[in-house]
Amino acid sequence: MVNRPAREDKFSFGLWTVGWQAADPFGAATRPALDAVEAVNRLAELGAWGITFHDDDLIPFGADVVDRDRRITRFRAALDATGLVVPMVTTNLFGHPVFKDGALTSNDRDIRRFALRKVMRNMDLAAELGASTYVLWGGREGSETDAAKDVGAALDRYREGVDTLAQYVLDQGYGLRLALEPKPNEPRGDIFLPTIGHALAFIATLEHHEMVGVNPEVGHEQMAGLNFTHGIGQALWQGKLFHLDLNGQRGPRYDQDLIFGHGDLLSAFFLVDLLEHGGYDGPRHFDYKPLRTEDADGVWASAAANMRSYLLLRERARAYRADPEVQEALAAARVPELATPTLAPGETPADLRADTSAFEDFDTDAAAVRGYGFVRLSQLALEHVLGARS
Amino acid sequence: MVNRPAREDKFSFGLWTVGWQAADPFGAATRPALDAVEAVNRLAELGAWGITFHDDDLIPFGADVVDRDRRITRFRAALDATGLVVPMVTTNLFGHPVFKDGALTSNDRDIRRFALRKVMRNMDLAAELGASTYVLWGGREGSETDAAKDVGAALDRYREGVDTLAQYVLDQGYGLRLALEPKPNEPRGDIFLPTIGHALAFIATLEHHEMVGVNPEVGHEQMAGLNFTHGIGQALWQGKLFHLDLNGQRGPRYDQDLIFGHGDLLSAFFLVDLLEHGGYDGPRHFDYKPLRTEDADGVWASAAANMRSYLLLRERARAYRADPEVQEALAAARVPELATPTLAPGETPADLRADTSAFEDFDTDAAAVRGYGFVRLSQLALEHVLGARS
Amino acid sequence: MVNRPAREDKFSFGLWTVGWQAADPFGAATRPALDAVEAVNRLAELGAWGITFHDDDLIPFGADVVDRDRRITRFRAALDATGLVVPMVTTNLFGHPVFKDGALTSNDRDIRRFALRKVMRNMDLAAELGASTYVLWGGREGSETDAAKDVGAALDRYREGVDTLAQYVLDQGYGLRLALEPKPNEPRGDIFLPTIGHALAFIATLEHHEMVGVNPEVGHEQMAGLNFTHGIGQALWQGKLFHLDLNGQRGPRYDQDLIFGHGDLLSAFFLVDLLEHGGYDGPRHFDYKPLRTEDADGVWASAAANMRSYLLLRERARAYRADPEVQEALAAARVPELATPTLAPGETPADLRADTSAFEDFDTDAAAVRGYGFVRLSQLALEHVLGARS
Amino acid sequence: MVNRPAREDKFSFGLWTVGWQAADPFGAATRPALDAVEAVNRLAELGAWGITFHDDDLIPFGADVVDRDRRITRFRAALDATGLVVPMVTTNLFGHPVFKDGALTSNDRDIRRFALRKVMRNMDLAAELGASTYVLWGGREGSETDAAKDVGAALDRYREGVDTLAQYVLDQGYGLRLALEPKPNEPRGDIFLPTIGHALAFIATLEHHEMVGVNPEVGHEQMAGLNFTHGIGQALWQGKLFHLDLNGQRGPRYDQDLIFGHGDLLSAFFLVDLLEHGGYDGPRHFDYKPLRTEDADGVWASAAANMRSYLLLRERARAYRADPEVQEALAAARVPELATPTLAPGETPADLRADTSAFEDFDTDAAAVRGYGFVRLSQLALEHVLGARS
Repeated sequence: MVNRPAREDKFSFGLWTVGWQAADPFGAATRPALDAVEAVNRLAELGAWGITFHDDDLIPFGADVVDRDRRITRFRAALDATGLVVPMVTTNLFGHPVFKDGALTSNDRDIRRFALRKVMRNMDLAAELGASTYVLWGGREGSETDAAKDVGAALDRYREGVDTLAQYVLDQGYGLRLALEPKPNEPRGDIFLPTIGHALAFIATLEHHEMVGVNPEVGHEQMAGLNFTHGIGQALWQGKLFHLDLNGQRGPRYDQDLIFGHGDLLSAFFLVDLLEHGGYDGPRHFDYKPLRTEDADGVWASAAANMRSYLLLRERARAYRADPEVQEALAAARVPELATPTLAPGETPADLRADTSAFEDFDTDAAAVRGYGFVRLSQLALEHVLGARS
Repeated sequence: MVNRPAREDKFSFGLWTVGWQAADPFGAATRPALDAVEAVNRLAELGAWGITFHDDDLIPFGADVVDRDRRITRFRAALDATGLVVPMVTTNLFGHPVFKDGALTSNDRDIRRFALRKVMRNMDLAAELGASTYVLWGGREGSETDAAKDVGAALDRYREGVDTLAQYVLDQGYGLRLALEPKPNEPRGDIFLPTIGHALAFIATLEHHEMVGVNPEVGHEQMAGLNFTHGIGQALWQGKLFHLDLNGQRGPRYDQDLIFGHGDLLSAFFLVDLLEHGGYDGPRHFDYKPLRTEDADGVWASAAANMRSYLLLRERARAYRADPEVQEALAAARVPELATPTLAPGETPADLRADTSAFEDFDTDAAAVRGYGFVRLSQLALEHVLGARS
Repeated sequence: MVNRPAREDKFSFGLWTVGWQAADPFGAATRPALDAVEAVNRLAELGAWGITFHDDDLIPFGADVVDRDRRITRFRAALDATGLVVPMVTTNLFGHPVFKDGALTSNDRDIRRFALRKVMRNMDLAAELGASTYVLWGGREGSETDAAKDVGAALDRYREGVDTLAQYVLDQGYGLRLALEPKPNEPRGDIFLPTIGHALAFIATLEHHEMVGVNPEVGHEQMAGLNFTHGIGQALWQGKLFHLDLNGQRGPRYDQDLIFGHGDLLSAFFLVDLLEHGGYDGPRHFDYKPLRTEDADGVWASAAANMRSYLLLRERARAYRADPEVQEALAAARVPELATPTLAPGETPADLRADTSAFEDFDTDAAAVRGYGFVRLSQLALEHVLGARS
Repeated sequence: MVNRPAREDKFSFGLWTVGWQAADPFGAATRPALDAVEAVNRLAELGAWGITFHDDDLIPFGADVVDRDRRITRFRAALDATGLVVPMVTTNLFGHPVFKDGALTSNDRDIRRFALRKVMRNMDLAAELGASTYVLWGGREGSETDAAKDVGAALDRYREGVDTLAQYVLDQGYGLRLALEPKPNEPRGDIFLPTIGHALAFIATLEHHEMVGVNPEVGHEQMAGLNFTHGIGQALWQGKLFHLDLNGQRGPRYDQDLIFGHGDLLSAFFLVDLLEHGGYDGPRHFDYKPLRTEDADGVWASAAANMRSYLLLRERARAYRADPEVQEALAAARVPELATPTLAPGETPADLRADTSAFEDFDTDAAAVRGYGFVRLSQLALEHVLGARS
């Protein structure tokens, strides 16, 4: 029996998600603006633990200081009243026309400087609100034509930008870690650091690489047809899964931001299984868009649905792991054997080279005919997803 | 006027490309086997510089030592007679049924050991033939169901395997660098290290990371809808473009291995432009499949077509770079400005934070209205591709 | 509680599915050939109702008449012994090299004639075995370059071919209907009649269009990113769903032929819901490939898994339809209102034009703010899939 | 040498293309509104022949009659002054929130009625302006969850809607033909009639099917990974290519609406070849979006670029067709042979069945070994595209 969401489940939502007014490339907004305080209150009622935001979600671009302070004060009061936390904050470096060619990699140096300052300013607020993660999504860092950008120069500037921001965090003594969010395309034709892999590779080149990780989003990897669970697995393996964005997507097409579970359901199951049993203890953050067809009731129903889907899948993942037949099938498929090093303790390449049992005397035909039993295993998983074995 | 291919163009071909007999998932071979010596002779006649191979391309799996030596001797004689070089060698870790669940990451430890030995044995030959690059394509390293693999364990074994092989190269004193070839899927449902980015990220974790780079293939990135030129740009930027595979692909679908230029032509142009003007001086290696509809004449026509397409695009890329109007349009689009650091020399984050011209006094509206001129630039590029400006 | 498969469930399998030896573009077969009689016996034991085949699955290409008759006799005996039926038969027009440029649309007229004869010959057998559907999958009808085919001429020949075959069926008095199977690509770069829609459109031009329908395959539509349930819905609406192929696919990539349910699970649920509640009473035919990693046990486990997945989803679809909250949510979302004609009985366009309540006096703002409740509905469906509401 | 665009080239543009203000899902408009009269004037100067529009492009939704008439009058005056024609008109049934669940297939019957009236009203204007084609793009006809729509009911309503509109045109005596524009997704998760094929199939069911055709868009088919030239070929073959939308797209991703030629260039070449040599004499209509990075200069540069790309490709297609080596290669590849009927004049299926030369005595091995020469042909085409053979 699945309980209602609890604080220890660490469910968080972007202010821009429930607040999305549902303007899209072909149509106008279908919902009124949502007050940030109402968002805090409703999310708290539904059992969420945290709320996150871009600077411009909370404070309109260009607001004066008085207005800014007033909005922050009201927001903080709502947080205090509800106990909702702010685990992550991020910057809008994509909405204003000034960023039309990017922010940290705009061809225009003045815009790059403006962008860095916009981030710094919001980092101050993030630190003040106690956030531990600062996300950087470079949605406008890219191009529609390869003629428009020298990729090497762009990556130089991207690195310079992230290095500068990391140094700023250190200089200020903020307890923030940075998390880069990859995406292959949209709104740019091609975006730099298009996948988890590209972002991880880039991070390895940074001056303060230890304080920079990734914030992968389900739909972003699936827009490239990639296996999200594999991507998360690599990010965890490299110690870089600082945060993540849960939602749904139906393959390579426009960025759908569906409710978690409403896209590739089997993949969502294996993702929850990995998060719950693979050592991740950060926020379960939803970055989705309530369908444009919905009114306010539908918005809150969608927020609840994200958490409920997660909890149902968690319950099924636990049952799957606890099922003796699954354990037996995993062993039969030799899944645990992959954890055994290929070389024996102390064995050198030369030792392996000299081991005739490994090659000259190895019976490849006998090894080749053995079945792996992956069908049985995947059918067991499917039946757990369907709730058919509990 | 484009000349015929010359040795200094460094065109190389896989023995398995012109030798492909054209069996596919739905049909039998349409061409007879091609003798390796004939491949060497014909490629040399066409103007190629190098030939590459998997162990099993040259020596059938399981051949005895006498047969093996005889085949190697004949092959070397043909190389000597033609002057063709062997710049790269690789291992077939995917064809034999023993590798049906992978090689370096098979759940079966004995198979992992066999796979390492198979690579080592062929590294000996690669070194003997003077190759400088050893490619590892892990086509079977992956899964069709997430239940079948612990991703962390798989990456542990993958790292162990590559570390072991790198150590073997060092121990033997071979002048080989290793190059990992990413691919998102096919023949496995999902393959580990699916893109250039994931491979680069993985390499950063290796013990001998300095001797391991990537061997990206045009079609493999395009199967994930990714911009190949951006990927190559990042690989170059990280100093890891050790080798590459040129071919054509028409977006996310089965691996087509078309002739270079016969897929996304604009992207092929920008790729050649980057390779020629971005500091890459390695082989221009074609990894394609002659269409299954073709006989031997079509095979050799296709080999020639790859080189001719490259040379034509190189000619157009040179004209593009030399065109004063392009230079002017690049400047107008501020492309060179991206090479200017965002911070001034010696400027700290604190300095930037204090610079009111960068934020408080920055006229975002004025900066936002300026057009970038990317349309003009991309149209100029298109017209150069079409040969309409020379 | 889901029962084991029964004859009235009408589950059928292609002989080539359980018989797939698992050679793929990058590797050799991992399983021995399967005797057709064993296939019949095992499928019958598992609860299947029917078996289908390509001519060459049962009788090797080029077999002499004696061998052919012997094989047919053995097969019939097994059918008689088990009660398994042959609801559908099809022709292999793709495996032999002679079809490398297609069969009904090969540029070579002699090959087109040979192909028609090959189909006719197997139609005789299909009729003899009591099949009611004859499937035509034109897997080689297409091209890799648009230069290779005049599309109009190709469609002329395609139509001529299907018209000829339909006439042959009529002339012979066979009780066969023809079903065209669309696919977007693989093994050809692009295949003619790439989707359900293109095939339906083509059928409307046929002389005997009433006896020709479609045989859509889950994965084929999903390779183009299309919604399979929508496609089946249109085929049913046009009265043309003569047969279908159930399997699984993970979006645009190579043709995976996964077990039904092991691809897009939510889509599989809605498909079963449509088939069970939308008026289709034909075979539930599985056209899948047992994973290449599996031995014979895995093959039969995979056959059982297809049927079990279908039955589990059918159970969930029934519970979904029977759930009063679902009924209420459907009504709230006005789903039934779509069945009401837009014009009143007898209303003409002119009447509508004159109805000011429809336009001049229509309150668009009021109509625009109403939410549709699709989030609630899709979450209810998801929870039924997860077995969380029964 | 390519001339500047001329009226007889029949180039037309949507008012919404050059007028796009460049708001996208992640960012605000970057350009001011464009006056329709300026659009007419500038397009005329650039050599365009026609301009097209949605009702709301010319007259804001909800404008009063006075404002409406004033705008129409100004627009007509500009047309008269420049000689620009209005070959096609269409309706915006997607922008206003009232259409958030569709127009002709909204679950809300009142909205369906409103939508029909909105089309009728604009058909009156279209007829008044002399348009010959009326396009229907059902961008909101679809769903994000299969639970939200009964597909059969939706297609009933879609048919009722199109039948009603066709009847209205007939009743009014307007010289309009209707053209349906397919698209697979965006802004809805899945759109009904997702491809050219589905639209053609639907049209065959209409009461006035003879006056309804298709308006395919390059990018829409390519979003599904389909071959646009094949789709246009089928539409022409079925006599249904009433209009078309030229632009560019880079495979399955968000709808990019790039300049024609700036997407898949080889496909654009073969498309132009087909349009110029395949019997289409309708408008060459551009439905693209000037990049969001551009100012007004970039907008007009992009309009010119579309026409210039078309003309350059037309020039290359003509050279390709005129090249004796191409003619020879086409013959060698037996491309013309596909126009020869497969059956001889008067030959019946029974005759073919009795012709042993077609099957029993046919030498499949000899037929199988012949190469088709498609490599040569596609390389010739490529070199013509590159301007390397003229």
